[in-house]
Amino acid sequence: MKKANKKINAAIIIIGNEILSGRTQDINVMNLSKWLNGLGVKVEEVRIIPDNEIAIIHTVNFLKKRFNYIFTTGGIGPTHDDITSKSLAKAFKLKYGVHKEAYRLLENYYGSKNFSIGRKKMAMMPTKASLIFNPSSGAPGFIVNNVYCLPGVPSILKSMLGGLKNKIKGGKIILSKTISAQTVESEIAKSLKSVQDKFKTVDIGSYPFFRLGKIGVSIVIRSSDKKKIDVCYKEIVNFLKKKKINMKENK
Amino acid sequence: MKKANKKINAAIIIIGNEILSGRTQDINVMNLSKWLNGLGVKVEEVRIIPDNEIAIIHTVNFLKKRFNYIFTTGGIGPTHDDITSKSLAKAFKLKYGVHKEAYRLLENYYGSKNFSIGRKKMAMMPTKASLIFNPSSGAPGFIVNNVYCLPGVPSILKSMLGGLKNKIKGGKIILSKTISAQTVESEIAKSLKSVQDKFKTVDIGSYPFFRLGKIGVSIVIRSSDKKKIDVCYKEIVNFLKKKKINMKENK
Repeated sequence: MKKANKKINAAIIIIGNEILSGRTQDINVMNLSKWLNGLGVKVEEVRIIPDNEIAIIHTVNFLKKRFNYIFTTGGIGPTHDDITSKSLAKAFKLKYGVHKEAYRLLENYYGSKNFSIGRKKMAMMPTKASLIFNPSSGAPGFIVNNVYCLPGVPSILKSMLGGLKNKIKGGKIILSKTISAQTVESEIAKSLKSVQDKFKTVDIGSYPFFRLGKIGVSIVIRSSDKKKIDVCYKEIVNFLKKKKINMKENK
Repeated sequence: MKKANKKINAAIIIIGNEILSGRTQDINVMNLSKWLNGLGVKVEEVRIIPDNEIAIIHTVNFLKKRFNYIFTTGGIGPTHDDITSKSLAKAFKLKYGVHKEAYRLLENYYGSKNFSIGRKKMAMMPTKASLIFNPSSGAPGFIVNNVYCLPGVPSILKSMLGGLKNKIKGGKIILSKTISAQTVESEIAKSLKSVQDKFKTVDIGSYPFFRLGKIGVSIVIRSSDKKKIDVCYKEIVNFLKKKKINMKENK
């Protein structure tokens, strides 16, 4: 039970020139973060880096020591710009070659007739990596120490999370409560700060929104302690009422 | 003319717990990257970090020496969790206080009657920063050395880019050509690699897609040299034709 109280954190490394150039809108950060939150793992940093061996090696080696879990996305496909697997082997100084189990899985998926050279490349990785099963397109992800390598295509990535769940040991789950207030930030800044100052271990965020022509502020209260959230919530609702600000609780 | 040939790069720092928690989908990276591309500035790294003073100071100080331009988004509003301005002053060891010009702009925008304490906070920043004009909500962004601080709300950020354009000196503009091929990556991996090996200074990316039930691969050719793009394009089209793969040029 003690273990479950520990804070467990993670960093995400998005590998891909297509994200950096603005060609592709990343959605893996949001999907992974939400999923990890639900397991009690807090994402504390994200880096988006190019398909470049030196960048991958440096980033992995820097982050792997500082976070409990590292997730990489992208660069494990069959083409020349897919260099994550090789770079990971170099980062950990591990042998890079045909991973026997991955080879079997892929051969089985494609059939030996259609198992082309391009496809065989997807069995190349650190030879002693553990595999992450891919139910949607065959090619597995893999784990080296605390680094989890996933593909860049969001739908495939999502399909692989189910099989990964039991491999992640999270800490306390971060809960949250959101209030939508029909106001502007500057109107509530002072009162909100005094609640935050009173409850230093609770994380209170304030996010202006513009929806359907209406402006407002989402106030998000986050903590692993439900009671503390409830107390903060009450204080915030009270000052909003005093200020005669319309509000509603979201989700 | 010589200057325009230089490679000019940038890093983006997204500051915000709401992005890291998965609550909010970032779109500022895509918007900023596309805009910078058009000015001949290549985004080479993105970091998403929490609303945490130490994280902001470390990240800014690390990146500012390594890239021509740094753009930060988020944390310049009026609430307690908006700590970018103060952190920037600390990172650069500059005086933090009321910026006279920003104060005047904000007072003018709100009218002296409605210029509340919360709103006055948005005039607090490194006192000698240059301002970035905000046509949509009054509160200016600011520039310290090569660091450009912008707000987190995407629509406001976008509205501020027009006024910023003349302050960015880009290099050669990166051009691109995209081919959509009705195939899978493993089918073209070998041929594509041989084109990439022949033209090492051109950046050829391969991105599988799943759209409307169809699968395919987008092949993106990027370079500042239009002629080289055209030669690569021809070679790729030729091998796709030989393989009898349907294709179309995008954009």
